[in-house]
Amino acid sequence: MQIGFVGLGKMGGNMVHRIERDSDHEVVAFDPNADAVSTAEGHGASGAATLEELVSKLDAPRMVWLMVPSGDITESTIAKLADLLEPGDTIVDGGNSNWHDDQRRAKELEPKGIHYADVGTSGGVWGLDVGYCMMAGGPDESIAQLAPILDVLAPPDGWRHFGASGAGHFVKMVHNGVEYGMMQAYAEGFDLMHQSEFPIELKEVAGLWNRGSVVRSWLCELAELAFKQEGNDLKGLQGYVDDSGEGRWMMNDGIEMAVPTPALAASLYARFYSRQEGDYAARVLAALRNQFGGHAVKKVEET
Amino acid sequence: MQIGFVGLGKMGGNMVHRIERDSDHEVVAFDPNADAVSTAEGHGASGAATLEELVSKLDAPRMVWLMVPSGDITESTIAKLADLLEPGDTIVDGGNSNWHDDQRRAKELEPKGIHYADVGTSGGVWGLDVGYCMMAGGPDESIAQLAPILDVLAPPDGWRHFGASGAGHFVKMVHNGVEYGMMQAYAEGFDLMHQSEFPIELKEVAGLWNRGSVVRSWLCELAELAFKQEGNDLKGLQGYVDDSGEGRWMMNDGIEMAVPTPALAASLYARFYSRQEGDYAARVLAALRNQFGGHAVKKVEET
Amino acid sequence: MQIGFVGLGKMGGNMVHRIERDSDHEVVAFDPNADAVSTAEGHGASGAATLEELVSKLDAPRMVWLMVPSGDITESTIAKLADLLEPGDTIVDGGNSNWHDDQRRAKELEPKGIHYADVGTSGGVWGLDVGYCMMAGGPDESIAQLAPILDVLAPPDGWRHFGASGAGHFVKMVHNGVEYGMMQAYAEGFDLMHQSEFPIELKEVAGLWNRGSVVRSWLCELAELAFKQEGNDLKGLQGYVDDSGEGRWMMNDGIEMAVPTPALAASLYARFYSRQEGDYAARVLAALRNQFGGHAVKKVEET
Amino acid sequence: MQIGFVGLGKMGGNMVHRIERDSDHEVVAFDPNADAVSTAEGHGASGAATLEELVSKLDAPRMVWLMVPSGDITESTIAKLADLLEPGDTIVDGGNSNWHDDQRRAKELEPKGIHYADVGTSGGVWGLDVGYCMMAGGPDESIAQLAPILDVLAPPDGWRHFGASGAGHFVKMVHNGVEYGMMQAYAEGFDLMHQSEFPIELKEVAGLWNRGSVVRSWLCELAELAFKQEGNDLKGLQGYVDDSGEGRWMMNDGIEMAVPTPALAASLYARFYSRQEGDYAARVLAALRNQFGGHAVKKVEET
Repeated sequence: MQIGFVGLGKMGGNMVHRIERDSDHEVVAFDPNADAVSTAEGHGASGAATLEELVSKLDAPRMVWLMVPSGDITESTIAKLADLLEPGDTIVDGGNSNWHDDQRRAKELEPKGIHYADVGTSGGVWGLDVGYCMMAGGPDESIAQLAPILDVLAPPDGWRHFGASGAGHFVKMVHNGVEYGMMQAYAEGFDLMHQSEFPIELKEVAGLWNRGSVVRSWLCELAELAFKQEGNDLKGLQGYVDDSGEGRWMMNDGIEMAVPTPALAASLYARFYSRQEGDYAARVLAALRNQFGGHAVKKVEET
Repeated sequence: MQIGFVGLGKMGGNMVHRIERDSDHEVVAFDPNADAVSTAEGHGASGAATLEELVSKLDAPRMVWLMVPSGDITESTIAKLADLLEPGDTIVDGGNSNWHDDQRRAKELEPKGIHYADVGTSGGVWGLDVGYCMMAGGPDESIAQLAPILDVLAPPDGWRHFGASGAGHFVKMVHNGVEYGMMQAYAEGFDLMHQSEFPIELKEVAGLWNRGSVVRSWLCELAELAFKQEGNDLKGLQGYVDDSGEGRWMMNDGIEMAVPTPALAASLYARFYSRQEGDYAARVLAALRNQFGGHAVKKVEET
Repeated sequence: MQIGFVGLGKMGGNMVHRIERDSDHEVVAFDPNADAVSTAEGHGASGAATLEELVSKLDAPRMVWLMVPSGDITESTIAKLADLLEPGDTIVDGGNSNWHDDQRRAKELEPKGIHYADVGTSGGVWGLDVGYCMMAGGPDESIAQLAPILDVLAPPDGWRHFGASGAGHFVKMVHNGVEYGMMQAYAEGFDLMHQSEFPIELKEVAGLWNRGSVVRSWLCELAELAFKQEGNDLKGLQGYVDDSGEGRWMMNDGIEMAVPTPALAASLYARFYSRQEGDYAARVLAALRNQFGGHAVKKVEET
Repeated sequence: MQIGFVGLGKMGGNMVHRIERDSDHEVVAFDPNADAVSTAEGHGASGAATLEELVSKLDAPRMVWLMVPSGDITESTIAKLADLLEPGDTIVDGGNSNWHDDQRRAKELEPKGIHYADVGTSGGVWGLDVGYCMMAGGPDESIAQLAPILDVLAPPDGWRHFGASGAGHFVKMVHNGVEYGMMQAYAEGFDLMHQSEFPIELKEVAGLWNRGSVVRSWLCELAELAFKQEGNDLKGLQGYVDDSGEGRWMMNDGIEMAVPTPALAASLYARFYSRQEGDYAARVLAALRNQFGGHAVKKVEET
C-alpha cells in the first residue's frame, strides 16, 4: 500500500526506514529539511518537495502520517492538509498530541469528510530494530486501511486499536504516566540504597532484580546499563529532570474524572522540584519560621 | 509553691521570668551557664550551682522542670536527677521529647517511685508576654501539684492535661505536624500567586485574608508581617527549610497506626526537597531518560 | 450609588440585605424566583421582574452584580446582559467562576465596550453580620465605581483589587486551595489523636490550640464548635467529602505553571478517596497481589 | 554441603524441595508440624523432631536457615538456637525481618561467636521452578559457606551479597517498596482507562505494553493474566489491599535518612485508604464544612 509521511526527524525518519526495509509498501516522504528527504529517498522512499507534491503523489483514499512536533506545527500542518485532501482521506497523527486535541480535530475535519486517526508510539530509538509499540485511535475504516503499515512498524502483534479518535493518544498518555510512576519508584529505591550505610553497588542490584525478582522490567534493565555507564554515584549527571507533557495531561484528566493519581502527582512534582520549582514556597516557609522565632534561617549572603 | 528549673536558655529563662514576675511561686534555677543563673536570680529566682544544690533547696515532694535540649542532654539530666530525687518527687520534661521516650522514662522511673510528667509548649518568643499554650501528660497527682505553675505560664485557660505520661508531647507533636501542613498550604498558595501573571502584593493578600476570610489564622498574620519585612520576592531568604523532628515522628506514628497523613508527608518532603535531598533520585531519573533516548540530559560541565 | 443584583439566593439575598441595611445605596434586584424578589424588596431594594426591567431601572454607567450559580447559568446571564447593556456599563461576577473564564468573558465583552469585573468572596453565612472578605479583579474604572458597594459588603478594610479581570477569582481560588490544605492538616491531626491510646477530648484540643498556640485559626475555632456539637466520635456524620472545584482548578494551574502543590494534591485526593474513588485502582492492586501469590485477597461474597 | 532448615511452610518447604531435587546437598529439616517434616523427608531431607535434634545432626561449623514468620517466632527461634549452637556456626534468617532487627541480632549473637546472616527473597510461588532472587547480608565467611546453597536456590547468577548483617533484608525491603510504587503506578493508569469514555479492554493494553513498550515488566505480565482471569471490571475482587510491612519500614528509613519517598508514600496511603483508614479524617472535613455553612453534609441515616 501507499502512505505519505510528513516529518522525517529521528522518529519519522526511522519509521520510513523500517517500512521500506521490511515491506513492499510505498512511502511518499516530505520534510522541510531537504537532507531528511534525501535520506528517506536513500532508504527507498519517494521524496516530495512540498505538501502539495506529497498529496499529488498519493492515490485516494490517501493516508498521510504526521510525525511532527506536537502543538503549533501539528496544528498548522493539519490545517494545510485539510485544504489539500479529499473526502475519504485520512490524516494520522503519530506524534505526542493531547487526546483532547485529537477529538477536536476529528470533529473539525468531519464536515470535509476527512478522517482523523491518532497513533501513540512507545519504544524510542530501539524502534527501528525491534519495532514500535503502537496504540491507535480513529474510525474503523481508517485503521483497517492503516493496518498493513502498523503491522510493519510494530513488533509481532504489537499494535492495538482502542476506540474512536483520541483513544490512541489517551492510552499512550496513560502509558507515559505509568512510566513516570515506575521511574520514580525505582529512583526512590536507588536513592535510599545509595544513601545507606551499606556499600551497595547499584548496577548489581538492578542486574540481580532482573533475574527472577518481582520488580524485573525493561526500565530496570536500563537502570543496570545506566549504572554501568555512569558509575554508582552518577557524578556526570545533573539532577534536573524535564517532563514531556503527558504526565501533566494525565493528572489533569484524573482531576477532571475524580480518579486519584497520587503516585503520578508525586512523580511529576519530584521533577518540578528537581528544577528548583517550589523554591519560592520554601522561602515562604523559611520566612514564616523566621517570624515565629527561634529558628535559624539561611539568609542570602551579603556580597 | 516551689519549683526547680533546669535549663535557662531562651525558653527556660523566659519561663522563670514569667513565673517570678506574675506570681508568688519560688523558683530554684540551675543552668551549667552561670550567667544564665545570674539572670534568673535577677528576676527573683534562687540560683543553684549544681543539680545537687537545686534538689537540696526544694522541699519534698519536689517538682523539677527540665527545659534542656531533647536527646542526650535530656536523657543524662533525667538519669542524674533519678539518683538525687526521692519517691513522690516529679520530673517534668518541658522540652521537645518524642512521646515514646516519655513512656519509656516513666516506666524506668516507676521502680524508684519518681513520677514523670511531660509538657509540650507552643508559643515561641511571645510566650513571655502572652503566655504559653501548654499540653500536659503524666500522673494526675503530679499534674495537680504542677497546676499553679501551669496557670501562671499559660494564658487564661491555656493548658490541658490529656492523659498519662507521653500524652502531652503526643498532642504537641500532632500540633507541630498540623503546623507543617498549614504552612505548606499557605506556601503553595503564595508561590502560585507569586508566579502568576497578576501583579499581586502578597502582604495585601495575607492582610486581607485575615479580615473575615475562612483561612484567617495566626500563621497568616505572620505571613503578612513576613512579606512586609522581607518584600514580595523574599529575596533575602534562602529556600532552605529545616525540620525539628516532630513532623517525622508524627509520620512514623501515622504509619504505625495506619492513619494516612498525606498532607504532612507532602509538607515534610517539601522541606527535604528544599535541602536538595532527592537530588540523587533526580539523577537516577535523568540517567534512565538518557538510556531510553531522545531526551536531552544535563551533563555536569567539564572544567 | 445604584447597583443591579441578579441572583437572590442565600448569598445574593444576604448581600442585598446588608447593602440596604448598612448604606444609602439603591439596589435593583432580580431573581427568577418572585419570592426572593419580594424578600429583597422587604429589605428596601427595588424589585425587577425581568433582566430588561432591571437594566432599565439603572442609570448609565450601569453596574450589575451577578450572584448566580457558576457555569451555564452564569454564561447565559452574561450573554443576555451583553445584549441589554451599553458601552461603559460593567458586569460583576460575584460567584465562583474559574478565572480563565473571567479572562475569556472580559475579552468577549470588550468589542461591545462593556467592562467585566470579578469578585471572589469568602465568609459564608456569617457575611451578613460581619461582612464578606472580597477579592476583586477588573478594570480600574469599574472597581473605582464599585468601591462604595464593596465598602459596605466587606468588613473594615476588607476588600482588595488584585489586577485585571480574573485576578479576583484567581486569588479566591488560591484561598480555597489553601483552605483545603489547612483542613486536611487539621483532619490528619485529629484522626491520629482519635486513634491514639490516650483518652483525648478533641474539643479540648481545638479549644486549647486557639489559646496561644501556633496553629490557632478560625478553622480551629470551627473544629472546637464541631466537636462540641457532634461529639468526639463524629458518629452522626459520614466520611464523604465533596469538593467545589476551586481545589481542582488550583491544581491544574499549578501543573500548568510547574508549581508543585503536593499538600493540595493530598487534600483533594483525600476527598476523592472519601467518595470511594480509587476503588478500582485498589482492585487492580488486589488482582496483582493475587497473581504473584501467597497474598490473601478479599473476594466479593457469593450470594 | 549440609544445611539445617527450620520452618517448612510454603516457602521453606519448596526451598528444601528445590535443594534436594537440584543438588547433592544434605538438608536436615525441622518444623513443629510433623506432616511438613514428612513431606520434606519425601523430597530427600533428613527430618528432625526438635531443634536439638536438628542441631545434633549437623557438623560444625553449622549453617541453620530460618524460614519462619517474622516477629516473635523468629525472635524466639533465634534465642533457642543461640543456646544450642557453637562459636563459628551461622544462623540465616531467610524470612521478612526488618534489617534493623538483623543488626541488633547480629550484635547480640557476637559475644557467643555465632554468626548471623540475612537473605531477602523475591519470587513467590514460582521460586520452586525458576529459582528465587536472593539478596544476602552477613559476614563474608558465612556467605562463602552458604554460597553453594544460594547457587541452587537462585536462578543462574541470581543472588548477591550486599554487605554486613542487615544488608540483605535492607535491599529486599527497598525491592518491596519499589514494587509498591510500580503497582500503584499501573493501578492508577488502569483506573483512569477503566473510567474513560473509550471501550478499552485492559487485558489488551497490558498485553500490548509488554510487546515493546517502555513500561513492559513482569508485573505488567501479571496484570494481563489478572484481567484475563478476572475480567475487565474485576468484579469478583474487593478493593481492600493489605500491606506486609516492608513499605512502612522503607518509609520510616526514608524519613530517618531525609530521603523523600513520595511515590512510596502515595502507594502505602492508597492501601490504607482502601481499608477505610482515613475515614475519621474525612468526617472531620465534613464536620468543618458543615460549620462554615452552605455545604451539604451526609448525615448517617436515622433508623
